[in-house]
Amino acid sequence: MTSERGIPTVLAASARALKEMGDLSLILVGDPALLEPAMAAQPGLERARLEPALQTIGMDEEPGAAFKAKRDASVVVTARMVKEGKAQAAVSPGNTGASVVSATLTLGRLTGIRRPGIISQLPQRGGGTTAVMDVGAVVDCRPDDLCLFGIMGNLYAQQVMHKPNPRVGLLSIGEEDIKGNDQTLSAFSMLKKAPIQFIGNVEGYDIFNGRVDVVVCDGFVGNVLLKTAEGVVRLIGGELKSIYAESGPFTKMGGFLSKPAFRELALRASADEHGGSSLLGVAGNFIIAHGSANQVALKNAIRLGYRCAADRLVEQMAERIAQQNAEAKA
Amino acid sequence: MTSERGIPTVLAASARALKEMGDLSLILVGDPALLEPAMAAQPGLERARLEPALQTIGMDEEPGAAFKAKRDASVVVTARMVKEGKAQAAVSPGNTGASVVSATLTLGRLTGIRRPGIISQLPQRGGGTTAVMDVGAVVDCRPDDLCLFGIMGNLYAQQVMHKPNPRVGLLSIGEEDIKGNDQTLSAFSMLKKAPIQFIGNVEGYDIFNGRVDVVVCDGFVGNVLLKTAEGVVRLIGGELKSIYAESGPFTKMGGFLSKPAFRELALRASADEHGGSSLLGVAGNFIIAHGSANQVALKNAIRLGYRCAADRLVEQMAERIAQQNAEAKA
Repeated sequence: MTSERGIPTVLAASARALKEMGDLSLILVGDPALLEPAMAAQPGLERARLEPALQTIGMDEEPGAAFKAKRDASVVVTARMVKEGKAQAAVSPGNTGASVVSATLTLGRLTGIRRPGIISQLPQRGGGTTAVMDVGAVVDCRPDDLCLFGIMGNLYAQQVMHKPNPRVGLLSIGEEDIKGNDQTLSAFSMLKKAPIQFIGNVEGYDIFNGRVDVVVCDGFVGNVLLKTAEGVVRLIGGELKSIYAESGPFTKMGGFLSKPAFRELALRASADEHGGSSLLGVAGNFIIAHGSANQVALKNAIRLGYRCAADRLVEQMAERIAQQNAEAKA
Repeated sequence: MTSERGIPTVLAASARALKEMGDLSLILVGDPALLEPAMAAQPGLERARLEPALQTIGMDEEPGAAFKAKRDASVVVTARMVKEGKAQAAVSPGNTGASVVSATLTLGRLTGIRRPGIISQLPQRGGGTTAVMDVGAVVDCRPDDLCLFGIMGNLYAQQVMHKPNPRVGLLSIGEEDIKGNDQTLSAFSMLKKAPIQFIGNVEGYDIFNGRVDVVVCDGFVGNVLLKTAEGVVRLIGGELKSIYAESGPFTKMGGFLSKPAFRELALRASADEHGGSSLLGVAGNFIIAHGSANQVALKNAIRLGYRCAADRLVEQMAERIAQQNAEAKA
């Protein structure tokens, strides 16, 4: 109900996901008056069923207030289905804040987690990805939140990204141990003691160069860096287009012949391939997708939810955090 | 003494600056044993003279301790010459922290400024630039620091960037007034009352799309975003290179013919054109250049220092801040 691209895009993405994953079943949550006819028009939804939810939370609504007022909102109903065991994972495009609040308050947090965070995979040189946590759930992190992001991100990289021994770095303004702000300097000493391969401080460019697998940062910083990266990609694309337009015939021909290369570049630099982002630290698999996610991105967000459920990510996360708490007390 | 590219690069940049600005004189600060023979070998330095400084502060030294221990370091001597009126502006490549500490403690702060910040110009769609402040001097800002960055950045944009009525935005995680962390939410209400054209919250991609002229942020966030932008530029360049290498002959030919376009793009996306960054809030013109700045970037950093001095930036800044303080008290 909350995708900016509309219901048909979501249903087409659902059909693609069902085709790709043979043992997946999907529950589409929303207003039957709108969903029923749309589902009838979309082939390939045999393993999908409808769950009614008559309200929606819009992009501009304040998450906390909207959650309280709209107990029948699609995102709230979706989270409730995971809570009640009727679904093994939730996928929600739309208002990120509403997703975080609905998931956290409905599913509850894992014991030992103060604030759940969002982990996102960004493209890396040579085709891999780097996970960044948090990218917008917790905008005023405490140092111990950052340390737990490192521990949760480590497990995510092992389970979902299939990296047996992930390198975890703390985002800062210099590689040296003494570089950082009050928040990161405290987090640094906690991460050093955590049961992960902590490689110390990393910098903004390390996200893309393959030096690190999991980058830990405050949600304010992580959100700014995601949008900055997006801005640079758009700047380069736009400038290149106008440079070609102003160029002579040979360079223009170069642009024409380069089209396959640019298509491949767009694919590698695009976030669509990695679909949604996991909300880690809640007691259930919950995937947040961009409100403007296209068909491919939405299909991949469903795939991420499927994988998290298949790998029992939340159960393992709960175990790992409990173990960490026991060790910290000992 | 502290440029990673070595003395000959600095001297070549100096000669270019002297040629470009006919009424400029330069004072080159450093070890005479190294500088004298190098200056003799570089033509075009007739209006340059040497000022001896026998120590240097390296990239890995802790700024505060180094400043105390090395009163004859080149960066300290340079700041002292501005303080004593022997120079109208200082330009320092190398250890940024050492530059900030040396400038702040030697020149002193303008009345009303708690923490000086660094303002940097980033490329914008269509050829302009956007100023971002702070990009690394103050990594734990108070809201009133951010408000003063807005006021100082506004004057910088008017004087140095020749924008009569700059749009000043606060970097946050959403455009709505209620979006942000504790720090930015407090700064928001202060900036709204400041005598500038405050356009509210802006996001990471707005830095590059021309929506805003001055972006205000904490130095930790600003430093991370600069390096993230750098990382994305390198990622795209590197991926494009390997895509062409793996391509068929037609696409390869496209890459060859596109070379002039890529050269133009590199020029537009490069930080060199904008040279150094001003440290604003100290009682003197002080330009910080990257330790690895090349000849063009260094020449442009000198040009920035020249312009700040010619425009009496510091004097105007002192007046504006005093006025702001008087109004705040009234």
